[in-house]
Amino acid sequence: MAVYTKLGAETMAAIIAQFNVGTLVSAKGIAEGVSNSNWLIEAQRAEEKPVRYILTVYESRVETGDLPFFLGLLDHLAERGCPVPRTIHDSDNHAYRMHEGKALALIEFLPGVSVDEPTAGQAHAVGAALAQIHIAAADFAQTRENSLALPGWKVLLDACGAEGLTSIHPELAMIVARELKSLAAQWPTDLPRGVIHADLFPDNVLMLGESVTGLIDFYFACTDVRAYDYAITHAAWCFSANGAVHYPERAAALAAGYAETHGLSAAEIADLPMLGQGAALRFTLTRAYDWLNTPADALVTRKDPMAFARRMDWYARATPAQVLGG
Amino acid sequence: MAVYTKLGAETMAAIIAQFNVGTLVSAKGIAEGVSNSNWLIEAQRAEEKPVRYILTVYESRVETGDLPFFLGLLDHLAERGCPVPRTIHDSDNHAYRMHEGKALALIEFLPGVSVDEPTAGQAHAVGAALAQIHIAAADFAQTRENSLALPGWKVLLDACGAEGLTSIHPELAMIVARELKSLAAQWPTDLPRGVIHADLFPDNVLMLGESVTGLIDFYFACTDVRAYDYAITHAAWCFSANGAVHYPERAAALAAGYAETHGLSAAEIADLPMLGQGAALRFTLTRAYDWLNTPADALVTRKDPMAFARRMDWYARATPAQVLGG
Repeated sequence: MAVYTKLGAETMAAIIAQFNVGTLVSAKGIAEGVSNSNWLIEAQRAEEKPVRYILTVYESRVETGDLPFFLGLLDHLAERGCPVPRTIHDSDNHAYRMHEGKALALIEFLPGVSVDEPTAGQAHAVGAALAQIHIAAADFAQTRENSLALPGWKVLLDACGAEGLTSIHPELAMIVARELKSLAAQWPTDLPRGVIHADLFPDNVLMLGESVTGLIDFYFACTDVRAYDYAITHAAWCFSANGAVHYPERAAALAAGYAETHGLSAAEIADLPMLGQGAALRFTLTRAYDWLNTPADALVTRKDPMAFARRMDWYARATPAQVLGG
Repeated sequence: MAVYTKLGAETMAAIIAQFNVGTLVSAKGIAEGVSNSNWLIEAQRAEEKPVRYILTVYESRVETGDLPFFLGLLDHLAERGCPVPRTIHDSDNHAYRMHEGKALALIEFLPGVSVDEPTAGQAHAVGAALAQIHIAAADFAQTRENSLALPGWKVLLDACGAEGLTSIHPELAMIVARELKSLAAQWPTDLPRGVIHADLFPDNVLMLGESVTGLIDFYFACTDVRAYDYAITHAAWCFSANGAVHYPERAAALAAGYAETHGLSAAEIADLPMLGQGAALRFTLTRAYDWLNTPADALVTRKDPMAFARRMDWYARATPAQVLGG
């Protein structure tokens, strides 16, 4: 991922000066974030040690109107002890500032690395952290519609087109249309809702050993069915990268971690396979859209949509107990 | 700049474990380096504070055979008090290791930011730091030929082709051919030689205020005429970005800084305009080559070759005194 916005050192120093964190000491553009530009910043107050922050400039995909939700949520969760980065407010107590027409925010830096091949112990810790944010967000006052729920999936399907999907895999257009129709007919409307992360992949979790040190990248967070967030997290953590193998021991650990502080109701558990199908469909569609709209020679790795089409197939055949690692 | 090599957290932790710096605490891919993949790493020994490093994986452009020169030079200069990052040797005391066919090195992290619009005070500090490395490198035992000297310029010219250069600017092919012919006839062979940085642009200098905290990116360093290194630095620091305006006050400060510890001889000063023409030709050609070989839609900013063609024109008309800011 590139850094899209160019910020000279002088401009960067002027921006940082508005946040009451001292003087800019170092700034490195980092190769993270799907559609934002990010820098790892170091600033220092007189007589104190340098402190690190992430400076994010929001590019096209993030609506400025959504920032009070995203950044307010971070502060809300951090205040309640969740492992999420705090937003550093500027000297006027704003959570973000505008710079040349783009919003930017300064965010706490958290240690930790993102794992590629999670252990069961790591899946357990992520399950517990997911339950923790579900509980802590219960009294968060703001709401945000999930733009990637059922109606959004239809928009993505139309944008890809049957021909596009067929160019990825001969049967993909047919599979996606069938799943979408089936899910639209049965998608649950009565399960408990709340604020969900909606994208809790290993990339978005910082860990040290088997401890979660940070949940990051809340830019898909929204108000939706909580068990759907659980299903997304299961889809993200409990399969081989290509979606061909399900790991029951990770699934059982994820469920045990989630149950430690929160737990799923019988109604939520009964719907897990369908929620998993929905989660897998959502990522199949967004990956397919990106696949069809990313030049093959761009310096960006295209992620294979079929890795989630395979998960969709797994959920279609799975029992609730199997999603829980049984 | 993208991170070309993918390193999972587990792989990264195993690599870091070989360097005797403690346990990996954090790793962020950074958007720096023309052709290497770089991560800002944090590692921690028991009972100590975390320490930062740069992990570099060398991609296509850097020859592994050159690494003992580049990395040995960093250690040599750092030992003599120059503001350059040390190489962290692994537990077998190797300056670099191989990982899946690519070389990688762990390098000291230095604070500071790269300025966009240097002040005269900053140019002064850079002149002094350049002289410092010229002196400190005098007893460095290794040598490396400059692959981007006159013979290399001819190779680049042929690789661009007259048609390619003309596609950038109607007169560029003619200008470059004329300059190359003229420089080949008069290029100095008797000026003092030594190890030079050969690419000391503001991007490759870390500063805090008007102090140099780090000279970095020595991957063009080689054995060549020292006053040519001075001319490259002048071309990089003393013009507007588009090459249209020369700033005498920065040039005078650069000269004063260089003279503080080293100074240029009368013979070197007399050749400065020609050396500047050579420096400007070298960057015109490499930029033209990159311009013609980078897809217009790649996520990389193409740098305008004409910004250095304009500098070439300035040097062709300049007196030695003018290069020194007079």
